Amino acid sequence: MATEIERKFLVKEEMLPKMDQIIRMSQAYLQTEPERTIRVRITDESAFLTIKGKQVGFSRAEFEYPIPKADAEELIKLACYPPIEKDRHLIVYKGKTWEVDFFKGANKGLILAEVELADEQEQVELPNWIDVEVTGEERYHNSYLARYPFSAQK
Amino acid sequence: MATEIERKFLVKEEMLPKMDQIIRMSQAYLQTEPERTIRVRITDESAFLTIKGKQVGFSRAEFEYPIPKADAEELIKLACYPPIEKDRHLIVYKGKTWEVDFFKGANKGLILAEVELADEQEQVELPNWIDVEVTGEERYHNSYLARYPFSAQK
Repeated sequence: MATEIERKFLVKEEMLPKMDQIIRMSQAYLQTEPERTIRVRITDESAFLTIKGKQVGFSRAEFEYPIPKADAEELIKLACYPPIEKDRHLIVYKGKTWEVDFFKGANKGLILAEVELADEQEQVELPNWIDVEVTGEERYHNSYLARYPFSAQK
Repeated sequence: MATEIERKFLVKEEMLPKMDQIIRMSQAYLQTEPERTIRVRITDESAFLTIKGKQVGFSRAEFEYPIPKADAEELIKLACYPPIEKDRHLIVYKGKTWEVDFFKGANKGLILAEVELADEQEQVELPNWIDVEVTGEERYHNSYLARYPFSAQK
């Protein structure tokens, strides 16, 4: 078990720097209850089964296991809702790696930036393209977006 | 992915042969929907995360991954309901291995026997200690027993 300690933000898209590296992701949920979300994620290169516990502050218990991609493709078919599709860009800023997710499909238009912390107290310098913080806001959980896509929330 | 093809029966306890091998099992569910049950199982020697799809006939899709026992112990705490505790005995009869589960705790009194088939059409010779078949009956699914223990069903 690991603990995921993470902050999440909206971004000012027009201020984002040029980004090269893209990781295409497709992910779906076998369980969307915030106390025990279960995610299947497929990227170009790998596939994972990930279980997360309830978020407390910036932290959640996280259990992640690599699985065969063929399994992941079958598991996504068992999911509760259609998969979330997004492109992840990585941006390094002052020694921290930011993950910037551009959602596609039913969540098109949403961009979220996440940064992992070493501990709850770590102070992170925010890039100028960061907008409001949405850490812990359920409507920005990917498991919530799977059920209630961004395009349908408006 | 594997396909689990299995038949399940009640047993005539008084006719069971002497059984030596016992596997103690503790298992809990992170998802109990029949279309995508997610089980964490701990035995004396190992731990597994298992996802099963909807049962059709005698068959269900099954995805099983070994996980660290320490993870499994934490995952059981995330489960929807208290764990099921049972002792599994293996009985070989005419070349087939029967798993006979003696439930404990809130499911005490229930004994279920299962046999895996090579395919849906395989004919299995039933031992004389087999009682009625309950294959596919939801109330005898372990995921159902986690929610509605046998002792509370009466």
